[in-house]
Amino acid sequence: MNLKNNTTHGSIEEGKRSIHWTEMHMPLLSELKSQFAKEQPFAGLTIGVCIHVEPKTAVLCRTLQAGGANVVLTGSPGTTKDAVAAALQEEGITVYGQRSDRRNEHLQNIHNVLRHHPHLLMDNGADLARTLIQHYDNNSLIGGTEETTTGANLLREETGENIPFPIIVINDSPLKRIMENEHGVGQTIIEGFMRTTNLILPTRRFVIVGYGTCGRGIARYLRNLGSQVVVIETDPIAGLEAALDGFRVARLEDTFAFAQVYITVTGRPNAILKEHFSQMNDGTILANAGHFSWEMDLESLRQDAQHTEQLTADIEQFTLANGRRLMLLTQGEMLNLAGGSGNPAETMDLGLSLQAASLLYLVQQRQHLIFGPQPVPHSVNNTIAGQMLKHLSYKI
Amino acid sequence: MNLKNNTTHGSIEEGKRSIHWTEMHMPLLSELKSQFAKEQPFAGLTIGVCIHVEPKTAVLCRTLQAGGANVVLTGSPGTTKDAVAAALQEEGITVYGQRSDRRNEHLQNIHNVLRHHPHLLMDNGADLARTLIQHYDNNSLIGGTEETTTGANLLREETGENIPFPIIVINDSPLKRIMENEHGVGQTIIEGFMRTTNLILPTRRFVIVGYGTCGRGIARYLRNLGSQVVVIETDPIAGLEAALDGFRVARLEDTFAFAQVYITVTGRPNAILKEHFSQMNDGTILANAGHFSWEMDLESLRQDAQHTEQLTADIEQFTLANGRRLMLLTQGEMLNLAGGSGNPAETMDLGLSLQAASLLYLVQQRQHLIFGPQPVPHSVNNTIAGQMLKHLSYKI
Amino acid sequence: MNLKNNTTHGSIEEGKRSIHWTEMHMPLLSELKSQFAKEQPFAGLTIGVCIHVEPKTAVLCRTLQAGGANVVLTGSPGTTKDAVAAALQEEGITVYGQRSDRRNEHLQNIHNVLRHHPHLLMDNGADLARTLIQHYDNNSLIGGTEETTTGANLLREETGENIPFPIIVINDSPLKRIMENEHGVGQTIIEGFMRTTNLILPTRRFVIVGYGTCGRGIARYLRNLGSQVVVIETDPIAGLEAALDGFRVARLEDTFAFAQVYITVTGRPNAILKEHFSQMNDGTILANAGHFSWEMDLESLRQDAQHTEQLTADIEQFTLANGRRLMLLTQGEMLNLAGGSGNPAETMDLGLSLQAASLLYLVQQRQHLIFGPQPVPHSVNNTIAGQMLKHLSYKI
Amino acid sequence: MNLKNNTTHGSIEEGKRSIHWTEMHMPLLSELKSQFAKEQPFAGLTIGVCIHVEPKTAVLCRTLQAGGANVVLTGSPGTTKDAVAAALQEEGITVYGQRSDRRNEHLQNIHNVLRHHPHLLMDNGADLARTLIQHYDNNSLIGGTEETTTGANLLREETGENIPFPIIVINDSPLKRIMENEHGVGQTIIEGFMRTTNLILPTRRFVIVGYGTCGRGIARYLRNLGSQVVVIETDPIAGLEAALDGFRVARLEDTFAFAQVYITVTGRPNAILKEHFSQMNDGTILANAGHFSWEMDLESLRQDAQHTEQLTADIEQFTLANGRRLMLLTQGEMLNLAGGSGNPAETMDLGLSLQAASLLYLVQQRQHLIFGPQPVPHSVNNTIAGQMLKHLSYKI
Repeated sequence: MNLKNNTTHGSIEEGKRSIHWTEMHMPLLSELKSQFAKEQPFAGLTIGVCIHVEPKTAVLCRTLQAGGANVVLTGSPGTTKDAVAAALQEEGITVYGQRSDRRNEHLQNIHNVLRHHPHLLMDNGADLARTLIQHYDNNSLIGGTEETTTGANLLREETGENIPFPIIVINDSPLKRIMENEHGVGQTIIEGFMRTTNLILPTRRFVIVGYGTCGRGIARYLRNLGSQVVVIETDPIAGLEAALDGFRVARLEDTFAFAQVYITVTGRPNAILKEHFSQMNDGTILANAGHFSWEMDLESLRQDAQHTEQLTADIEQFTLANGRRLMLLTQGEMLNLAGGSGNPAETMDLGLSLQAASLLYLVQQRQHLIFGPQPVPHSVNNTIAGQMLKHLSYKI
Repeated sequence: MNLKNNTTHGSIEEGKRSIHWTEMHMPLLSELKSQFAKEQPFAGLTIGVCIHVEPKTAVLCRTLQAGGANVVLTGSPGTTKDAVAAALQEEGITVYGQRSDRRNEHLQNIHNVLRHHPHLLMDNGADLARTLIQHYDNNSLIGGTEETTTGANLLREETGENIPFPIIVINDSPLKRIMENEHGVGQTIIEGFMRTTNLILPTRRFVIVGYGTCGRGIARYLRNLGSQVVVIETDPIAGLEAALDGFRVARLEDTFAFAQVYITVTGRPNAILKEHFSQMNDGTILANAGHFSWEMDLESLRQDAQHTEQLTADIEQFTLANGRRLMLLTQGEMLNLAGGSGNPAETMDLGLSLQAASLLYLVQQRQHLIFGPQPVPHSVNNTIAGQMLKHLSYKI
Repeated sequence: MNLKNNTTHGSIEEGKRSIHWTEMHMPLLSELKSQFAKEQPFAGLTIGVCIHVEPKTAVLCRTLQAGGANVVLTGSPGTTKDAVAAALQEEGITVYGQRSDRRNEHLQNIHNVLRHHPHLLMDNGADLARTLIQHYDNNSLIGGTEETTTGANLLREETGENIPFPIIVINDSPLKRIMENEHGVGQTIIEGFMRTTNLILPTRRFVIVGYGTCGRGIARYLRNLGSQVVVIETDPIAGLEAALDGFRVARLEDTFAFAQVYITVTGRPNAILKEHFSQMNDGTILANAGHFSWEMDLESLRQDAQHTEQLTADIEQFTLANGRRLMLLTQGEMLNLAGGSGNPAETMDLGLSLQAASLLYLVQQRQHLIFGPQPVPHSVNNTIAGQMLKHLSYKI
Repeated sequence: MNLKNNTTHGSIEEGKRSIHWTEMHMPLLSELKSQFAKEQPFAGLTIGVCIHVEPKTAVLCRTLQAGGANVVLTGSPGTTKDAVAAALQEEGITVYGQRSDRRNEHLQNIHNVLRHHPHLLMDNGADLARTLIQHYDNNSLIGGTEETTTGANLLREETGENIPFPIIVINDSPLKRIMENEHGVGQTIIEGFMRTTNLILPTRRFVIVGYGTCGRGIARYLRNLGSQVVVIETDPIAGLEAALDGFRVARLEDTFAFAQVYITVTGRPNAILKEHFSQMNDGTILANAGHFSWEMDLESLRQDAQHTEQLTADIEQFTLANGRRLMLLTQGEMLNLAGGSGNPAETMDLGLSLQAASLLYLVQQRQHLIFGPQPVPHSVNNTIAGQMLKHLSYKI
């Protein structure tokens, strides 16, 4: 469904102003926009996009549009910012979907996008690519980008590795792991904790479950802010790295007396189990920084609780049979997104510029591409890294 | 005006839950409450309180009440949380005022409190003490506490040093300077910046104007988070300390090309002047962490701007005659309060426990007290420091 | 030449005591020693070792000997600690060479070792392996370990990839890169700078040339100590990482006015060239943390200097034609070794335990090995990481 | 005894070169030297100096001499660097004493200095002032400076507060506490530990006994290097500060299982007692950063040890009755001096410039001075702080 009719002029202005602020802090996309405007690399091409609709991704869509593309966009259920969508509509970008959509409407939106016969896909979780392969005969498709590793894996499984076009997987770029995982997530999880709890960081005793790039970022920022941080990590090499970075490394079962806060960030399910909750101190705070809320067994927590109370919009209190109270932040959803504004503009600028530059690469190299999932080309990584470094630097 | 009639049951519950969460993280007040409940040091005494009415101060009022006090409370115009006030009313604390009050109603509330003939005052800006001295004959007054240095100075000036009762000034306690200024303000200004801007901290170029305890806290936290920090400080000894702490120290007029963000925290007016704005880079962000918004000449900024636009609820954009855009956060009001939740619960626990313990001291030592403003007694500082240290510590 | 005759009993005692102190801080080798003593994995086997003869490697030799090995050892020219060699001799380890040896005697020592027909080699720079391949017919050789990447490359080039036995290359182990490069080198370069100069670190302006694991360690430690650090890095991805870690990243040619100290750590020749010296400030200090002294063009520096003076044992002053004086530390040799005691005992414990465990792996898997250079097996890395982590940890 | 006859020309050259390197890193004294050379404030005046004779203090003596002073100098027993003394002699400064002197010769040297009828004293431990008051009638004395607080206290006690001239006490200057105590001592204790032990800092478990300015410096530097640091502090306010700075704060008796290293820095005797030693872990390292070696009860340790062994020049091993071995660094003397080169040149530049500027103040204000010990004048502190800040700064 098209948005045009159910948005007011007021919210369009609001959407424009939030895009304006964001665009000022996305220098790489701005630069690409100037370049694209001159070179028109996407002239005559339709790009089908599935991505959260909010100011940062709006800047990306306008960048592609400046390069001559006909951009057709849909968001994800529940995250579409209608004012932003309206602002984009006004500028000639086709947007399907609105905040109130559910799964059913989302599938409809996916089809709506694909009916435009896109030459390029910018996908998230393989929603576009999977539907296209199953339902459409699209001879004009050059290829696409896929934000998530999960999406790439889904595609491989479903097609038996027979994906009929190239897919550049953005998430595994080393650049993204450094800037978005370690620093973007590291910083914003700290913000989310402060914002939702209003508690002091120095002296507070955190247990960070998982020392991948995200976990390392969170742990380092907390230590630098004066917190007492213990790291749980099952891989001995990552564990040794954590110890040398100044952290105490322990087994989860030895941390219950110590911990005031648990933050899970393993990327896998079941890091904290049913039997762990009753061993925690009264008042222990539980938060998650991983993509899914499955890292703690929240279903058991809810079932076993004698009493549940929503203390604030972001804090739910579970009273256990032993009388102890556990405090769950933002329903166990990613603390930086659910309890804050998500990754900083500049880290999104990096990831979305990798998207835009990868689409450009697909167009320029279309004669020489192999099919299937593939990493961001080294030349793209290098160029984007160099440009970001230039923007973050200052003469000495 | 009494609140009882114009609050709903729903908001009382909401008030209670927010007090509950906060009380869990104010261990010193909780301990004092147990002690007071046993010893009843305030039995038969009325305490007149003027303080922002919100969950943290609600915990203090309940602590005093547990000690036998008849607590009579009023807030400040514009900051009263009505749900919290309602919850306190239900527990038998008399509360005057509501969020919508203006200056006139506030003065009325002050008189309402004083008509209860309080034996003790807990004052903020000397509103209670000044009105009492001018308008009341109160023979039963033992003494009071005063939160601010400003309030104490006002009293001294108006009375010619003839204040007819003892006033313990809380703000100058070394404890408070360490925990509330350096760490509480340090942490929450960072949070306020992240929350209002959603920008990355590492690589960002900050200029911190003022290296007192608050400035040091902000500067250190930012450096530890990877920011590039330059300090402006006119006192050479504090400046040398900043340099050795790892900061570049400079004159304001040399920072315009460097700065992406200015944060003022000098405690004095006019740190940034009319003539400075036009020399700043396009996009420079301006924020204040000092008590008043007078540290930048905002009046001139507003007058000289060609165009003003509210980009988000917390960001105002001023377009200067030279075309450059400056971004003012939270109207120049304290960034941690106006753009966040203010100081963390534990730092407030310290300050409010100093209040409660000082009131106890006034009662216990009433025969031996000198009149006029005086610092928190060393024994009180030491006791509170020791208790806070115990609560923040964990066996090694 | 055998040492036994030209050492006194006194120096043997001295050697033993220094080994004793060191062994106390090499818990992994100590544990391997107990295990080896029980299991005798090297019974009947001769191990030919070429390694610097000093207390830490002495602990390794004693570990292998405890496992039943006949250990035959030679050092490198100029680094043999005679007291340590004497102490090892007394315990039945055959040691060839002494401190005063030159290149000629070293080659002789290599042959002396190989004449024992070793079953295993522990090599450094491929001295043993190359000589063996060229001059000996050794059917009993099982394989060897090689400390350096350079040694492995030399072997590959000389043999056209036809190396007739397995060689496990220790240096590339991720473990070693974390613990020895980032932390061991990071810490000891700082020590070497302090020891040789007696200058203050906070406020001092360093330029770190190269942001590999060693450079990152040095840069991070210096920043944490309050220094002002600029990083030079030609790879944009590593450069971006440096910027986000809080460093200013620049081109070498922009750093001359800023720099008080240069530390090269690129692993490659010619990071600082002839034409750079005359642009540096008067008093600039030059140091090297890379393996070879080739990272600065010292030959040109010496030729172009008008005047050269040895200010202290570790500081050489070059007066240039423009009158400026540059200060070279420890002749441009690795600052932590030449100006200190080299890597800390625990980091050597890791690297040498990787050696010992790799030798064990070669013996246990001798039927299943492929020939040529190969990385440390994942199982060995994991086991050693887990043991080190255990030793560095403390109950929380 | 005069040095001239028993030094060789070679050692004079060595002395000059070490003074040259040091002078390059003492910019404030160099600047004062230029100023003094022009203004000749000490023309016709004799300055009697008692100070360690080494390169940094040599720079000070040359500075005073440049101002017209006749400098007469003696050192302390055991610390005189003869080559430096010889170099000063050659430049016309009278030096009494040599490295091999004992207490007796030192007293003789003090008298030798006083026989020159100095107009100004630069004293250390009140050796000159006490002897002068007892034995000399010196009408021409203007006043003096005293390095230590201890010296000032001694004078007060002996004279019953009747000190017949002004004495400016350098040690209490806030400047010195920041730069020399926190940063100078902080940095060099870390260096001394690394140099004497060659052990890794990250993961190492330190207990810092005392959180004054020196203790804070040591603790902060260690934490920043990745060590695990526990602080012992009896004052609750300083203890709270330590906790908020990120340290675990504990009682000494709870640290024995945790500690790998103790560093005492309380400034008082008997921080670690006889009964504590046997509770420590095998291998625990003991070091002292306080002025005297009395902070641990070393006499008891020596008496109770079953066996004592000097492992290296700086490490003494005590085997207790329970079989555990304790390792004492540098005989319990200040670890940075006894195991290193003492405070960095720049921190000494600050302290010695305070000395020189205070002497100048005495001369300029001689008509207006009160008698007895007094702090460094605020104007002197401010001027020196400003100059040091300028030298440590770099344009941004």
